[in-house]
Amino acid sequence: MQIKELGELALIKKLAEQFATSHPRVIKGIGDDASVTIQDESQYLLCTTDTLVEDIHFSLKHTPFYNLGRKAVSISLSDIAAMGGTPTFLLVSIILPASVTIDFVNLLYRGIKEKAEEFDVKLIGGNTSSSPDKIIISTTMLGEVFKDRVILREGASVGDNIYVTGRLGDSALGMKIWKEKGDNIITDPFLKDAVMAHIDPCPRVREGIKIAEKKLATAMIDISDGLISDLRHIAEQSAVGAKVWVEKVPVSTGLKRWILDHPQDIMLALNGGEDYELLFTASDKDAPKLETVSRELDIAITHIGEIAPKINGVNVLNEKGEALNLAIEGFEHFKQRQE
Amino acid sequence: MQIKELGELALIKKLAEQFATSHPRVIKGIGDDASVTIQDESQYLLCTTDTLVEDIHFSLKHTPFYNLGRKAVSISLSDIAAMGGTPTFLLVSIILPASVTIDFVNLLYRGIKEKAEEFDVKLIGGNTSSSPDKIIISTTMLGEVFKDRVILREGASVGDNIYVTGRLGDSALGMKIWKEKGDNIITDPFLKDAVMAHIDPCPRVREGIKIAEKKLATAMIDISDGLISDLRHIAEQSAVGAKVWVEKVPVSTGLKRWILDHPQDIMLALNGGEDYELLFTASDKDAPKLETVSRELDIAITHIGEIAPKINGVNVLNEKGEALNLAIEGFEHFKQRQE
Repeated sequence: MQIKELGELALIKKLAEQFATSHPRVIKGIGDDASVTIQDESQYLLCTTDTLVEDIHFSLKHTPFYNLGRKAVSISLSDIAAMGGTPTFLLVSIILPASVTIDFVNLLYRGIKEKAEEFDVKLIGGNTSSSPDKIIISTTMLGEVFKDRVILREGASVGDNIYVTGRLGDSALGMKIWKEKGDNIITDPFLKDAVMAHIDPCPRVREGIKIAEKKLATAMIDISDGLISDLRHIAEQSAVGAKVWVEKVPVSTGLKRWILDHPQDIMLALNGGEDYELLFTASDKDAPKLETVSRELDIAITHIGEIAPKINGVNVLNEKGEALNLAIEGFEHFKQRQE
Repeated sequence: MQIKELGELALIKKLAEQFATSHPRVIKGIGDDASVTIQDESQYLLCTTDTLVEDIHFSLKHTPFYNLGRKAVSISLSDIAAMGGTPTFLLVSIILPASVTIDFVNLLYRGIKEKAEEFDVKLIGGNTSSSPDKIIISTTMLGEVFKDRVILREGASVGDNIYVTGRLGDSALGMKIWKEKGDNIITDPFLKDAVMAHIDPCPRVREGIKIAEKKLATAMIDISDGLISDLRHIAEQSAVGAKVWVEKVPVSTGLKRWILDHPQDIMLALNGGEDYELLFTASDKDAPKLETVSRELDIAITHIGEIAPKINGVNVLNEKGEALNLAIEGFEHFKQRQE
């Protein structure tokens, strides 16, 4: 059997099972946004690693070097945010074809450095090496979280509300537009915003920390694969089902306008991926507190659905309450990609 | 200017300078075998990341899948060993072409798991993704060391002795033999040992811990690039020079016999790379204690040279005390490789 037949999720699951480790210091191993291990009496250590490969996770045609560096950092920051953690240290390995110029390396590292500094993260290590052809960027982000504040994927209960920060689908729309437009200048300011959402996403670190500090979330994940795929991760880890009301899913003015001409592209908000927003569940009684957080941090926190019994599965409902027939695979790495 | 003109070492140095970070919690950032940050009152956290790329760092023609997994772990273990640390947790990202079989993935992970278990290291995270063509394995190893025991590259002083564990050059010889022999069976037991040294090196974790515990080393590094290249790292970080007596460099019986017919291959011991032995400096007064460690752990610890003033540079001397004229580049990733 080859990988492409099995799909990434199944593969990861299979491997995770095989390596399930039980040790008093390991709170959460494979199967969450970051690993959670005991650091000291009061805090957990968080660690996440990501690898970006040219022509799979990014294309130099569509990503300026500087932004590539920023985005590599953002992806890892987002994983720490999804645990409710504070990011601390970063290591970056970069594999480069010998033909790459020093200017490229400088721009790439400038992007890495600036994004890390924005979040008070210190670059403390890494290495460089050559590649036969593709650029590969591997990031390791460390973080910390007080023991009573960590948020896993596995704590959702039937009846919890489902929330999402920010707006979804802009990143996928941005990628689509950029590919279609090629080198042509994008004049529409809304579409420009969508492109920026794709090339320079904003990880929700402040938001994750605040939600954790106030103990508002029962489960949390960042949306990298797409809303439905990532909601399925929460559902699976928490052994529950979920329903999402499609008309509640928050989208930007740009995407709203786009959908008028391309109605099927509502799917970009449901399974477009790379939003790097936080998807979390919370008890209904905490709704007022979440409104306060939303106001304080000046970010939309939208109630988009509810956790249901496991037997119901994960569903997206239209305005009539009918389940949409979704052949949703999200950002499935081993299947055919749109790129 | 392109990378290949500059060379990896210069590039890393340039970038390290650019990112030199000063923060009370960062004891050592870029420029050692692992990063060193303050974990709690008594211990430092160590972190190292390595990326192995098919056809650069390994070839599937010469590396069985199972051993590839083991070696990926060993390389990171060796980095923690070089700090005098105890390895704790491992994260592995694997990028696979869609054509790879599940059998491959299982063998690879079995190798990873078994090597990690040998050193009581827990696999706690990672991810998998697809690749356009090459297999890429990225490891992140965490470790710990008591604050008063960490060994950096920068503590060597003029007059210190230079030591190395084990024997050097077998890995490079093994790679050479394997490439020459192709699929032919290697019958010579000594040459078989050399091949095993290449495909399944033994990281010197126990040795590093013991040397750190007894506070015997003033500076330490693992030999991944080659003896002379790695000695130059110590010399540079410690602002000293060094001399090595070529006839003292420990080599296996297999390599000794090989050198009889291929005298120039003494260079395999000096700059072959991938030995994963520990290279360290120590005060002369600690020589008897090192003999005890050598006996207790049943491993050769050989006095191969002395730290000299910086102005003298790094030299390898022959039996007459003459400096060899070495055009040594070690395992220089951005230059032409022998593979």
